[in-house]
Amino acid sequence: MSNNFSLGPKLETLATALEDSYFAYRRIHHINTVHLPARDEVYEITRRLFALIFPGFFGRQDLTSKNIHQYLTTEMDGISQQMYQLIYQCFRCRSKNDPASDHKMASQATERFFGELAHTRELMANDVLASYKGDPAAQDTDEVIFSYPATIAIGTYRLAHTIWKMAVPLMPRIMTEHAHSQTGIDIHPGAQIGKGFFIDHGTGVVIGETAIIGDNCKLYQGVTLGAVSLPYDETGLIKRNYKRHPTLEDDVVVYSNATILGNVTIGKGSTVGGGVFLTQSVPPGCTVSTRPAELRYRNRCVVLGGGRVFDYWI
Amino acid sequence: MSNNFSLGPKLETLATALEDSYFAYRRIHHINTVHLPARDEVYEITRRLFALIFPGFFGRQDLTSKNIHQYLTTEMDGISQQMYQLIYQCFRCRSKNDPASDHKMASQATERFFGELAHTRELMANDVLASYKGDPAAQDTDEVIFSYPATIAIGTYRLAHTIWKMAVPLMPRIMTEHAHSQTGIDIHPGAQIGKGFFIDHGTGVVIGETAIIGDNCKLYQGVTLGAVSLPYDETGLIKRNYKRHPTLEDDVVVYSNATILGNVTIGKGSTVGGGVFLTQSVPPGCTVSTRPAELRYRNRCVVLGGGRVFDYWI
Amino acid sequence: MSNNFSLGPKLETLATALEDSYFAYRRIHHINTVHLPARDEVYEITRRLFALIFPGFFGRQDLTSKNIHQYLTTEMDGISQQMYQLIYQCFRCRSKNDPASDHKMASQATERFFGELAHTRELMANDVLASYKGDPAAQDTDEVIFSYPATIAIGTYRLAHTIWKMAVPLMPRIMTEHAHSQTGIDIHPGAQIGKGFFIDHGTGVVIGETAIIGDNCKLYQGVTLGAVSLPYDETGLIKRNYKRHPTLEDDVVVYSNATILGNVTIGKGSTVGGGVFLTQSVPPGCTVSTRPAELRYRNRCVVLGGGRVFDYWI
Repeated sequence: MSNNFSLGPKLETLATALEDSYFAYRRIHHINTVHLPARDEVYEITRRLFALIFPGFFGRQDLTSKNIHQYLTTEMDGISQQMYQLIYQCFRCRSKNDPASDHKMASQATERFFGELAHTRELMANDVLASYKGDPAAQDTDEVIFSYPATIAIGTYRLAHTIWKMAVPLMPRIMTEHAHSQTGIDIHPGAQIGKGFFIDHGTGVVIGETAIIGDNCKLYQGVTLGAVSLPYDETGLIKRNYKRHPTLEDDVVVYSNATILGNVTIGKGSTVGGGVFLTQSVPPGCTVSTRPAELRYRNRCVVLGGGRVFDYWI
Repeated sequence: MSNNFSLGPKLETLATALEDSYFAYRRIHHINTVHLPARDEVYEITRRLFALIFPGFFGRQDLTSKNIHQYLTTEMDGISQQMYQLIYQCFRCRSKNDPASDHKMASQATERFFGELAHTRELMANDVLASYKGDPAAQDTDEVIFSYPATIAIGTYRLAHTIWKMAVPLMPRIMTEHAHSQTGIDIHPGAQIGKGFFIDHGTGVVIGETAIIGDNCKLYQGVTLGAVSLPYDETGLIKRNYKRHPTLEDDVVVYSNATILGNVTIGKGSTVGGGVFLTQSVPPGCTVSTRPAELRYRNRCVVLGGGRVFDYWI
Repeated sequence: MSNNFSLGPKLETLATALEDSYFAYRRIHHINTVHLPARDEVYEITRRLFALIFPGFFGRQDLTSKNIHQYLTTEMDGISQQMYQLIYQCFRCRSKNDPASDHKMASQATERFFGELAHTRELMANDVLASYKGDPAAQDTDEVIFSYPATIAIGTYRLAHTIWKMAVPLMPRIMTEHAHSQTGIDIHPGAQIGKGFFIDHGTGVVIGETAIIGDNCKLYQGVTLGAVSLPYDETGLIKRNYKRHPTLEDDVVVYSNATILGNVTIGKGSTVGGGVFLTQSVPPGCTVSTRPAELRYRNRCVVLGGGRVFDYWI
């Protein structure tokens, strides 16, 4: 027995079997089609945009008042070209138009994105300040920018939402799912979120496509803003594209692991307590909480005699 | 004070202290042993397999009917050789056999893996279609493949489970834990899962080693399929290797943050509601839900007077 | 329409708008300041330390009794120099001292870190053994080191806590948030944790800054050790730096998705059941559980007639 290996004559048969399977499931291959955008390129652009938004934190470190303008124009020029190519591919891989139309749409989308960038940055700056103000463990805004999952998740959402508004396919969702992978915070790029948003810890947070969140809201880990029930259209497919997620008005706080489902409204300044399961609207200025579950205390030796019902593992 | 640093004469003492600690805890070093498999190699093979499964999405983009066969045979040949070396190391680092036996086992395992690959791909294709059908926010299958955590977590599980069945040590768990790290979805490679499986959002999902899941099941974020109680064997160690996790029959849906524990069966077509905590079996065709907790509504100003019991942060 | 793109004459205006936004939000840029530490450098040092702690697993694989001492001294020397430079930058970017004082502080911190390293490793070794003993699915300690999220999250916390104790800014939190990103386990570097700690699965776990955990404790996925209520100081800012998180005495087990809030104490040997929401202390030797919620069982066809209240998706 040597330590070399070969599939030998089987290779041909096995390759053919896999090839047949490609063409049996046409929807999950991209052979003989226009090229898909490269996912790594989306990640790279997001990374470059974060460096542009938070100068001195990521990327080049020696920025001064003297070199900043030159740095900025060079970077914006480079990123905009890379982004334009990618957005073109996103449009193109779904398009029935001629390439020239798609080039034009890509050009307009890229210009609009950069036209809004200073405003997007203002939103991201406000989110960072909201994180600092909202968390007693935060030592300063440097720490928030360098290490808070909220900075990655909300910031990526801000950038992706701008692209989502221009109906660019694929790219916005790839961006937010990359942030989801890094942070455990799943914000759909279609959600609408006001100024000064903060999510503390964040693992397990889900914010659905048609959720609307006002200014100065705060969520904790494990909060779901989801949808209720599953309506089907006449053809038996699930219905898409209607308002099915909650609206939070300004200054709402939702504590950890609360679940809010459906097109309900949580009024201005209201607070939803930890673990609350809510499928109805709440007026402004309210605190909603669950009547605490009755706790059972048992002495261990008694429990050992009678079977340890709540001792479990996975 | 210069900006150079050295531990100076202490270096020798400190290195000796650490060296002593290596040999004090023999189970957590690999010095003087056969080489462990390299973890990065496992990640790399998983990445290459995904490119093979979803052609045109990851890896090479210019695939056509003309070049696909050549691409496939070259890639399969390359991946199979890399995989064989790695599987050999996995067997070898635990083995008491001669190297030749381990080479033979590695060779058989690699051949069997590639023999099943077209079938494994069929399962992964069905999972992608199930994701698309099951989520109203999904725009098409391209989006599902490019950005859904389910694609990474379930797909990696499918590949790892095939390797797990051949009793290859270390590799399957390293694969699924890498997917866990990327997605927050923790599927043990030993679980048995039927066709058309979908997990939406997914952060916090845990599926234990002896769980069995039928066809066309769907889970949401935060669902645990775990085990109850902690039996010890005669020697005082926890018992391993017995059926301790739930069975879901076909067409079962489990909503977010539900916990199902123990060797219980959820019957065909049943639905388990959000947040349900279940340690008993459910007959087919049932909907199980928790009686909604009684909610308390308080006006904020009243609350401020009486102490804000449910205002907490972390 | 060509496939080239340029922002053209708008580039200048857009760059100026972004530049203005930098100086409008002074707290979130680092222009004209001392250089911030590079975040990737923190990740790199953590990676090198893990290789030093678990020889043969990560990094070099051919270690033997003969070459181990040379390897160790070379690595310790290299890592300590890299760490010294980084710690200096961490002190420097917040400092009002002269550079020489910061160099001295960095030197002392680095020496102290390496002086404690053998002890830190002992703690990490005990954690690995606790993982193996506590999980029936663990095949051996190799698997625990290679693939358990607990190894990354708790190990990184151990290293970061040592640095936290020396009041090094930024670095400890960057380390633990990197582990949070990889594992979904969020342990603040300021927490105090005893020997033999294990977290199974772990996604969604949050352990706050002032939590204290005794020896041989075990947590499951989704457990929060958080703080209650949000006191403000005289100036209207939230209060920082006081004991606001729970204390777990030795041998405490907390099952999945339980939430414990505030400066309460869970007594030695007590068990907190899955999903329990607790804001009060528990005496030693107790088992605390929630009275199971009343479940409702409905046949699906009946439900379809009356509206499917608990069928929801996100």
